[in-house]
Amino acid sequence: MVEIPSLLHAGYHHPVQRPWQAERALTKASLVYPIFISDQPDDKYEIKCMPEQYRWGINRLAEFLDPLVAKGLTSVMLFGVVRPAHKDARASIADSPENPVIKAIPLLRSRYPNLHIGCDVCLCDYTDHGHCGTINDDGTINNTDSVKRLTEIALAYAKAGADYVAPSDMMDGRIKAIKQALLDFGIAHRVSIMAYSAKFASGMYEPFRDACDSAPAFGDRRCYQLPPSARGLARRALLRDANEGADILMVKPGLPYLDIVRDAKNDFPNHPIAVYQVSGEYSMLWRAAEAGVLDLQRTVIENLESMLRAGATIILTYYTPRLLDWLSA
Amino acid sequence: MVEIPSLLHAGYHHPVQRPWQAERALTKASLVYPIFISDQPDDKYEIKCMPEQYRWGINRLAEFLDPLVAKGLTSVMLFGVVRPAHKDARASIADSPENPVIKAIPLLRSRYPNLHIGCDVCLCDYTDHGHCGTINDDGTINNTDSVKRLTEIALAYAKAGADYVAPSDMMDGRIKAIKQALLDFGIAHRVSIMAYSAKFASGMYEPFRDACDSAPAFGDRRCYQLPPSARGLARRALLRDANEGADILMVKPGLPYLDIVRDAKNDFPNHPIAVYQVSGEYSMLWRAAEAGVLDLQRTVIENLESMLRAGATIILTYYTPRLLDWLSA
Amino acid sequence: MVEIPSLLHAGYHHPVQRPWQAERALTKASLVYPIFISDQPDDKYEIKCMPEQYRWGINRLAEFLDPLVAKGLTSVMLFGVVRPAHKDARASIADSPENPVIKAIPLLRSRYPNLHIGCDVCLCDYTDHGHCGTINDDGTINNTDSVKRLTEIALAYAKAGADYVAPSDMMDGRIKAIKQALLDFGIAHRVSIMAYSAKFASGMYEPFRDACDSAPAFGDRRCYQLPPSARGLARRALLRDANEGADILMVKPGLPYLDIVRDAKNDFPNHPIAVYQVSGEYSMLWRAAEAGVLDLQRTVIENLESMLRAGATIILTYYTPRLLDWLSA
Amino acid sequence: MVEIPSLLHAGYHHPVQRPWQAERALTKASLVYPIFISDQPDDKYEIKCMPEQYRWGINRLAEFLDPLVAKGLTSVMLFGVVRPAHKDARASIADSPENPVIKAIPLLRSRYPNLHIGCDVCLCDYTDHGHCGTINDDGTINNTDSVKRLTEIALAYAKAGADYVAPSDMMDGRIKAIKQALLDFGIAHRVSIMAYSAKFASGMYEPFRDACDSAPAFGDRRCYQLPPSARGLARRALLRDANEGADILMVKPGLPYLDIVRDAKNDFPNHPIAVYQVSGEYSMLWRAAEAGVLDLQRTVIENLESMLRAGATIILTYYTPRLLDWLSA
Amino acid sequence: MVEIPSLLHAGYHHPVQRPWQAERALTKASLVYPIFISDQPDDKYEIKCMPEQYRWGINRLAEFLDPLVAKGLTSVMLFGVVRPAHKDARASIADSPENPVIKAIPLLRSRYPNLHIGCDVCLCDYTDHGHCGTINDDGTINNTDSVKRLTEIALAYAKAGADYVAPSDMMDGRIKAIKQALLDFGIAHRVSIMAYSAKFASGMYEPFRDACDSAPAFGDRRCYQLPPSARGLARRALLRDANEGADILMVKPGLPYLDIVRDAKNDFPNHPIAVYQVSGEYSMLWRAAEAGVLDLQRTVIENLESMLRAGATIILTYYTPRLLDWLSA
Amino acid sequence: MVEIPSLLHAGYHHPVQRPWQAERALTKASLVYPIFISDQPDDKYEIKCMPEQYRWGINRLAEFLDPLVAKGLTSVMLFGVVRPAHKDARASIADSPENPVIKAIPLLRSRYPNLHIGCDVCLCDYTDHGHCGTINDDGTINNTDSVKRLTEIALAYAKAGADYVAPSDMMDGRIKAIKQALLDFGIAHRVSIMAYSAKFASGMYEPFRDACDSAPAFGDRRCYQLPPSARGLARRALLRDANEGADILMVKPGLPYLDIVRDAKNDFPNHPIAVYQVSGEYSMLWRAAEAGVLDLQRTVIENLESMLRAGATIILTYYTPRLLDWLSA
Ligand SMILES: [Zn+2]
Ligand SMILES: [Zn+2]
Ligand SMILES: [Zn+2]
Ligand SMILES: [Zn+2]
Ligand SMILES: [Zn+2]
Ligand SMILES: [Zn+2]
Repeated sequence: MVEIPSLLHAGYHHPVQRPWQAERALTKASLVYPIFISDQPDDKYEIKCMPEQYRWGINRLAEFLDPLVAKGLTSVMLFGVVRPAHKDARASIADSPENPVIKAIPLLRSRYPNLHIGCDVCLCDYTDHGHCGTINDDGTINNTDSVKRLTEIALAYAKAGADYVAPSDMMDGRIKAIKQALLDFGIAHRVSIMAYSAKFASGMYEPFRDACDSAPAFGDRRCYQLPPSARGLARRALLRDANEGADILMVKPGLPYLDIVRDAKNDFPNHPIAVYQVSGEYSMLWRAAEAGVLDLQRTVIENLESMLRAGATIILTYYTPRLLDWLSA
Repeated sequence: MVEIPSLLHAGYHHPVQRPWQAERALTKASLVYPIFISDQPDDKYEIKCMPEQYRWGINRLAEFLDPLVAKGLTSVMLFGVVRPAHKDARASIADSPENPVIKAIPLLRSRYPNLHIGCDVCLCDYTDHGHCGTINDDGTINNTDSVKRLTEIALAYAKAGADYVAPSDMMDGRIKAIKQALLDFGIAHRVSIMAYSAKFASGMYEPFRDACDSAPAFGDRRCYQLPPSARGLARRALLRDANEGADILMVKPGLPYLDIVRDAKNDFPNHPIAVYQVSGEYSMLWRAAEAGVLDLQRTVIENLESMLRAGATIILTYYTPRLLDWLSA
Repeated sequence: MVEIPSLLHAGYHHPVQRPWQAERALTKASLVYPIFISDQPDDKYEIKCMPEQYRWGINRLAEFLDPLVAKGLTSVMLFGVVRPAHKDARASIADSPENPVIKAIPLLRSRYPNLHIGCDVCLCDYTDHGHCGTINDDGTINNTDSVKRLTEIALAYAKAGADYVAPSDMMDGRIKAIKQALLDFGIAHRVSIMAYSAKFASGMYEPFRDACDSAPAFGDRRCYQLPPSARGLARRALLRDANEGADILMVKPGLPYLDIVRDAKNDFPNHPIAVYQVSGEYSMLWRAAEAGVLDLQRTVIENLESMLRAGATIILTYYTPRLLDWLSA
Repeated sequence: MVEIPSLLHAGYHHPVQRPWQAERALTKASLVYPIFISDQPDDKYEIKCMPEQYRWGINRLAEFLDPLVAKGLTSVMLFGVVRPAHKDARASIADSPENPVIKAIPLLRSRYPNLHIGCDVCLCDYTDHGHCGTINDDGTINNTDSVKRLTEIALAYAKAGADYVAPSDMMDGRIKAIKQALLDFGIAHRVSIMAYSAKFASGMYEPFRDACDSAPAFGDRRCYQLPPSARGLARRALLRDANEGADILMVKPGLPYLDIVRDAKNDFPNHPIAVYQVSGEYSMLWRAAEAGVLDLQRTVIENLESMLRAGATIILTYYTPRLLDWLSA
Repeated sequence: MVEIPSLLHAGYHHPVQRPWQAERALTKASLVYPIFISDQPDDKYEIKCMPEQYRWGINRLAEFLDPLVAKGLTSVMLFGVVRPAHKDARASIADSPENPVIKAIPLLRSRYPNLHIGCDVCLCDYTDHGHCGTINDDGTINNTDSVKRLTEIALAYAKAGADYVAPSDMMDGRIKAIKQALLDFGIAHRVSIMAYSAKFASGMYEPFRDACDSAPAFGDRRCYQLPPSARGLARRALLRDANEGADILMVKPGLPYLDIVRDAKNDFPNHPIAVYQVSGEYSMLWRAAEAGVLDLQRTVIENLESMLRAGATIILTYYTPRLLDWLSA
Repeated sequence: MVEIPSLLHAGYHHPVQRPWQAERALTKASLVYPIFISDQPDDKYEIKCMPEQYRWGINRLAEFLDPLVAKGLTSVMLFGVVRPAHKDARASIADSPENPVIKAIPLLRSRYPNLHIGCDVCLCDYTDHGHCGTINDDGTINNTDSVKRLTEIALAYAKAGADYVAPSDMMDGRIKAIKQALLDFGIAHRVSIMAYSAKFASGMYEPFRDACDSAPAFGDRRCYQLPPSARGLARRALLRDANEGADILMVKPGLPYLDIVRDAKNDFPNHPIAVYQVSGEYSMLWRAAEAGVLDLQRTVIENLESMLRAGATIILTYYTPRLLDWLSA
């Protein structure tokens, strides 16, 4: 009486069969660890809302990264954190030789020759007003000028030795401008661009602002980060960046935007898709596990396998140190 | 220099434009509230892992639901909770006149004539072994016999007056069997089936088991609930249920499976798609807000708007009481 | 002057980025090892055309498999080899208690409780005429009778404890018949079917015939194995088996049919796709490496990664023992 | 009981029907023979890893090609081989009047007026470092300068009388640059471009390096040849070259990349698709046949029919002389 | 100034490249020759409107076919022609032992063991009213009864040794009925069905009626042959026959219906598609060539290559004898 | 027993239903009449191979066209015919005030104000060598220079008052150049381009050459007209012209290329598609009807309805005068 094609149980009865039903297995090679580099060289400062995550001074990087590289860490994304006094309206510190990221790259390059090193590119960590671009007199974003600054900053990181740059600002047209600058400088073939393409104005970034001291001084970012409901804009933003030469397309945050990851994979099957599991996701799982409501390892892995299932190839996650252990077991 | 099609900011600069970018707005009409009916008529028992959620005895339902219906509650899904002594291997209590759900339906029907009343259909709340079907001697599920019991139970709820039945068991072939039974009884035209079609073996159900006392006594549910990575099986399960006559297709849990909601919407554009925001999601957001990491209202609404963006038309959520307030403001 | 979207080099300059460009990574969980079980209990007979591959008697299985299971072997497919005197026109030995596969299953089940055990299902290893079905008076295949025998044999292996059965015969309609038999016996939920769906009449099976003593005594198999050029028939055969209830769809041989693997994946994105790297492929790579023309490890891994790229999730390969070592390094 | 559409056997029972199931028949018109022209005019040097293949001096070409043209050879692709002393960093010999290919073209043109003559275009046969482009100080490829050299070389071959040029270098943007140069010189209408578009960093090129003395002196080619797993990059490279004006799109190597041939045909149904059966494929089949494991004629033809089935229209193969005989029979 | 992708000339400048632009080459293996078998054993009667085409008695078949088989004829389709006195309302002669086709098959089978022999299956050659089915009292076709007769006739030809049967009647449901009959008789695996699926009520059949004496005595065939404009019906008729088990789908006539051939290939990429170049096409080309308006060889070949280009794999043509010569040159 | 969806007869049993099955009806509004204007003003010269078709001098146009316009002729396409002495290498007469087409346009415009007047644009009617472009020293076409001349000629016709120009030359890039010239002259909004986009090197043009005295003096047109088998090139040529601004896309000849009409309609659903029923088609039908083999009216109408069914919206046919009568009946 039952329809033959309705019979699905046999396909996943035995545990060996279950990974056969997946499109992609979770491996260490998929993980990118975002790390915060402080402008205070001896710093090791625990970030309040993100237990076990720290801001590191460059003198402490070996202590921090040696064990992780030994366990299989292959790729990092660097964020710089500077004191308020060093910030200004145009984020001058961002591409200065004093920038902690610019200082850290050659150190990491020489200590870990095979490590794949990327840099977040934005203004908000370095502007006194905390916005991701420069500001017009009327308080709106000056897109043209912002793209100019972002290009200068991305080029500075690339010259310092970065393998990839990752513009997180959501300005229109910055990918093409950066690609052209890399091409003109003769390094477009060895420095790739991971574009934060579908970055939403989410409530899940709160803890990150504590990590980077980067909340806007006025207004919010809803004029350049995408409205959470805006599927159409997100797909157009992915298309914008693919057409402008992005090597990797990112969706951020992760969990509440897995459908956008699927859209990205469907629309751009030939690009690697990255997902950023943001600070709020990190904290939310941590707190629930702490309260005994969820099992941390099981849930984090379910979340990451969901990202792969949705079409991601690269996952940026603060749980990377834990995962390097879990995946070794 | 910038490419014209790259210019997206103008489309969402003004707040009034942002909802224009969405496919569907969050309204009270999208919400279904899952509620637990205790077999102890005067019960009001707070569920440990789910703050503000209770098991209610039928004598307390008016107290509980009057204000919610007044605020705009339009649809509920009922789960029965019975004492262990009343459970057996075949879930006999499930379709007995003593079942609290069967008792509650006529009460609700008469007090709230416009309320849309559905019933979860499964064995696990009522079996002593805690599995969603009956069991073979070798400890595996007896699919044929389970479908028979599920059909009897669904029909019992329908006869008691339910507007829809929602089989959550993941047995192969049960939708067709239930549809046929409703047809044979002459009520297939007024009782619809909301199929838990893509229901995953998630780590996010932990608090629910506390709510219903329904953890399996041995083994787990991974032989019938889907492996989290199994996109292909999920799409085949949605197809199975659509072909067998489901009126509504559900994906469960919600947040980590939004890509599957998108797949469901793409594959079945002509069916309403339901999403179940499960107990683990409820608790995780609650704990994070409690710890001051996230803003509860903003994040819950972002999560629900994400479900709509992914393609959902119906959301089952324990946050329904809060949402009835938030959406009234 | 160069077009921006033409710039691809940056996407694969760094070795860490190259796996990001892949859809699926090669892991031990993808491998199934085909092994030959002799009816002579103490046999360890090296197969002439397939160096390092043996026919094993059941008394030698522990010696053979203990180290492989320890290194991560998760799934095997069993082929029986019997002496010519035990063969007849209807392959009576295939489902007799004396069949070496039927004897081996319980041994393997008890020694390796987590091992996933499958059985090739065909008549050709056991018929005196060497064909995959029974024969009409005019020398053609009797499809109806062949399906009857194949169903009996598949059921015998399933009763003996196999986790999956894999009909390699290419008769029309056997998948549905086997599924129905498993359903009637009440084990359809825990015994899956891996269908040899697109199996071609290839010149690459030569060494296998030595392994199994299974060359046809007259005629050839071109009336049931597919013509190599026949893309359309292959896609129709995959559709035939998917519609009849196959849990896994196989393409065989592997390398010369990778386009058919891609067709299978495109047509059936929701089924696991298996590829069989056949004896001729094994031998060809071995001989070329032996002659110093190719590097064995690099080429075998390139071949298997090509299978994954083409859409395969499961690879049956005689190189499994080598791969368990290579993938551990 | 059997489903009618499951009955496939009748469609290929009779041998006359089997070619009816194919999309394209193997004919001599599909074959292109790659030949090596030595800078030593009287050379006939057998290539160690490729039995029966030689490097030919221009004085020996008539002896070599007269019988093949008589048997139906219609198209050749020429590779030049020069002594190490004639190589330098910029491949100056590649477009010099002393280049053996440039000398051979007019000879072939006048002796075989209907022969279709193509030239491989690359630097690696002529650079002292053995890379396919010129090199930056940091050891990476200088893409811009490489494209300039490739364009000069392609134009030199076209001026010498080539019917098509075939850039095998995998630099970004070279197809457009060459097309523009042909257009500016007024011969774009009679010189076509066969683009090595999806050329992978395969282990199957080993014997070729012996043929051409062209292994890189340092590093490898993985920064410009595609990673074997990279389906997405391959499709983007095919799109790159189609958009830049390629007349024919090539996939290389052949057998392990048949799925990419299918992708190429699906994505570009209106372009001829070429496949290069590389030296490792040639040798591997040869060695296996020599060892008695495979039948050479049957397997080579099965391999080539597989390429046609996957979507190829043109096959470059060292087996061309054998095939001209086999297809005449 | 010209757009690079607009440059197409280079792709077909050289004659060697032109076949590379085709999907399929014209070979003898694609040809099926329709021949008329007279019930007068010594007949050789030239058909008035079809110069060089004859009705042959079975005693003359060797004289006629020996030279054609020697030149490469591989497949024929037989039509029977009987005297009016032998016709009746139910086409009794069609499956009688006296039918000339039934007599001819064993002769051909024994004289040409590799010849692929098919039979047109219809009633119109054998009914006194000249319709393709039996007739109701109201003069309309009795579809059910017609299918019964067609099935009996097809089975008779298959029993006589035909390799394929080709129902040309356009009754609804006859393919499934014939397939089932072949299956019940145990020969469904070796007798295939070439379905006249999209057969139009064309003005191009006139000369054929002279060949077979088969014009209807009253009415016409527009109630079962398709209206020329009816693309939708044609595609549904192709689907009807594919679903009912046709091994080969035919479009008839050829030239005015090449778009339907393309539709057939697009809709059924996995079936061989046959085209029937009908008598009117044959005559029209003949007359135009005779008048010196067209070159016969060039135009016939252009017409046939057009059929291949449109998606055909099999061409039924009265020009087969000429083509066997032309393709040998 | 018959499958319900197999029942098609009812859909076309009644004659009234048959046109319902068509997508488009044949009407006078679809017809364009190609006419030949002689440079001898009093000419009325019957074209040998095309009975009932004439070359007309401008003094005879009223006599010729008055009755046709009265019967419903709405659109014409003009071809000029000049004496050999007026031809030269660059087709100077083509855009001279002495050109018969340039003289005819104002006459037609004033006598038939509503007539839609188009002009074929090519060089071959006016060059002494008979090719469609100007010629390089090596005998190949000079595409760049040819495009320049074609643009000048098209502009001359447009200035003379043509409603549309129809370049039939198959040079690469001429549509864009003509569109730009019309734009620069300010008439791009009222002069449209009907592009001969998929024009094949057919054997069916023979009679036309007699009509226009336009056979090439040397060589043939196979380097710019498409190879008959080349579906891919045809689709790319359609794409080329659509991208360059063609208002109408033409396929030529008609009957043997109906599949290409279907491809054109599928690929460019938003452009009108024209089909040219060429001189060879005209003559072939005429001769067959003359010989009594076919019914002229029935067959011509079947041919034209087939063109509409294949996707055409516009038909250029020499049968226009006959059709104006047939369609009036
Ligand atoms: Zn920012
Ligand atoms: Zn349950
Ligand atoms: Zn077999
Ligand atoms: Zn190279
Ligand atoms: Zn008939
Ligand atoms: Zn012309």
